[in-house]
Amino acid sequence: MPNPTAAMLVIGDEILSGRTRDANMHFLAGELTKHGVDLREVRIVSDDRDAIIAAVNDLRAAHDYVVTSGGIGPTHDDITADCIAAAFGVGIDVRDDARDLLQAHYDRQGSELNAARLRMARIPEGATLIDNPVSVAPGFIIGNVHVMAGVPSVFQAMVASVLPTFVGGAPLLSQTLRIDRGEGDIAGPLAELAADYPDLSIGSYPFQKNGAFGANIVIRGTDGAQIDAAMSRLHGIFSE
Amino acid sequence: MPNPTAAMLVIGDEILSGRTRDANMHFLAGELTKHGVDLREVRIVSDDRDAIIAAVNDLRAAHDYVVTSGGIGPTHDDITADCIAAAFGVGIDVRDDARDLLQAHYDRQGSELNAARLRMARIPEGATLIDNPVSVAPGFIIGNVHVMAGVPSVFQAMVASVLPTFVGGAPLLSQTLRIDRGEGDIAGPLAELAADYPDLSIGSYPFQKNGAFGANIVIRGTDGAQIDAAMSRLHGIFSE
Repeated sequence: MPNPTAAMLVIGDEILSGRTRDANMHFLAGELTKHGVDLREVRIVSDDRDAIIAAVNDLRAAHDYVVTSGGIGPTHDDITADCIAAAFGVGIDVRDDARDLLQAHYDRQGSELNAARLRMARIPEGATLIDNPVSVAPGFIIGNVHVMAGVPSVFQAMVASVLPTFVGGAPLLSQTLRIDRGEGDIAGPLAELAADYPDLSIGSYPFQKNGAFGANIVIRGTDGAQIDAAMSRLHGIFSE
Repeated sequence: MPNPTAAMLVIGDEILSGRTRDANMHFLAGELTKHGVDLREVRIVSDDRDAIIAAVNDLRAAHDYVVTSGGIGPTHDDITADCIAAAFGVGIDVRDDARDLLQAHYDRQGSELNAARLRMARIPEGATLIDNPVSVAPGFIIGNVHVMAGVPSVFQAMVASVLPTFVGGAPLLSQTLRIDRGEGDIAGPLAELAADYPDLSIGSYPFQKNGAFGANIVIRGTDGAQIDAAMSRLHGIFSE
């Protein structure tokens, strides 16, 4: 049985402008792989209502799980929750349980739960809250869409609390062999090896270092013995 | 007049598995911003024919420029050129000018232009070649789609040769102010500022450092004087 699939939607002008590098994608990719869920697609869109709604609807129809990051804070450019409600065609309003969490948190801090902070208690109808042990303001799950914060420490905590609810398949195992020859030299035997192991994914990832080309050959699959066999043939071919 | 828009398609199992971090997206985002082209969307898909074709057709219909990275090498998992041809509904075959480039290169190296390497001369009908000063195998342009290698040094060289052909708008300018207060404290005045400067994009990017929350406020636009004015009001508001 093939593994369940996932997609990620990153909402962030700051990544598209080149100002910052995304860190959440790399983290989520690694966690999903370990959990036996195939991350098949990532989309990064700007803080644009139509773009977010279209992407959410595309991705939730095509994949078992969707994870979003970004745009659920208290500022005017945080529009993710409203867009998710629109994508699902449901209402959105401040919800009592979310407001109570925030109220208790700001009471403890001696800060005011002002109008801006109260926006973080706006939850689409029918959603389930995701716990935020770092800064309290919750994420939420609606349908197969998991809406999380963009701040990496909060995103990671939310992934940790949500991932056990994803039904994973067999974890994807991999082994890598670095070959210090150009891909053109190794492509022929590599294609034969790939044809002989149709259940494995054999990828060639070229690099250039000090003017010389090489490639990392990565063999992936769920059957460790088969990967061992393919890897030992790979060693045999390229140690000639 | 709004700036032209661009989208990027990254083709790469190795990023989706969490094995490597993408470097090309961050580079391209910065270059496009300097050139006055708005990068609106990035998609990362796996080495899957249907996924690549669908993404190319979506993105080329929605944006002025599309840049792809990855999947144009000599190995069996390099399927980008064939997918681009299928997306445009045109044929693909080894082309004389591309083969001549490769032949001359491998003759100089004393290597053989074998069947695998010859795959890199497969160019969709009607495409224009993109020069590759690093490792010779060309990229290509068809319609508004610019197909480039995934190896960062090669990708960057190809971007450098193609970018001058993009008709850019006014370069996007930006100024940033770091505020060491939680977003909930600053969201109200920030929303007022954003409403008073509808031509500027005012983004709040929260961070957490040593347990304390803060935010980088980034004001972006094409009119430097307007950004100066908004930034000086921002300083006024938050230095109280």
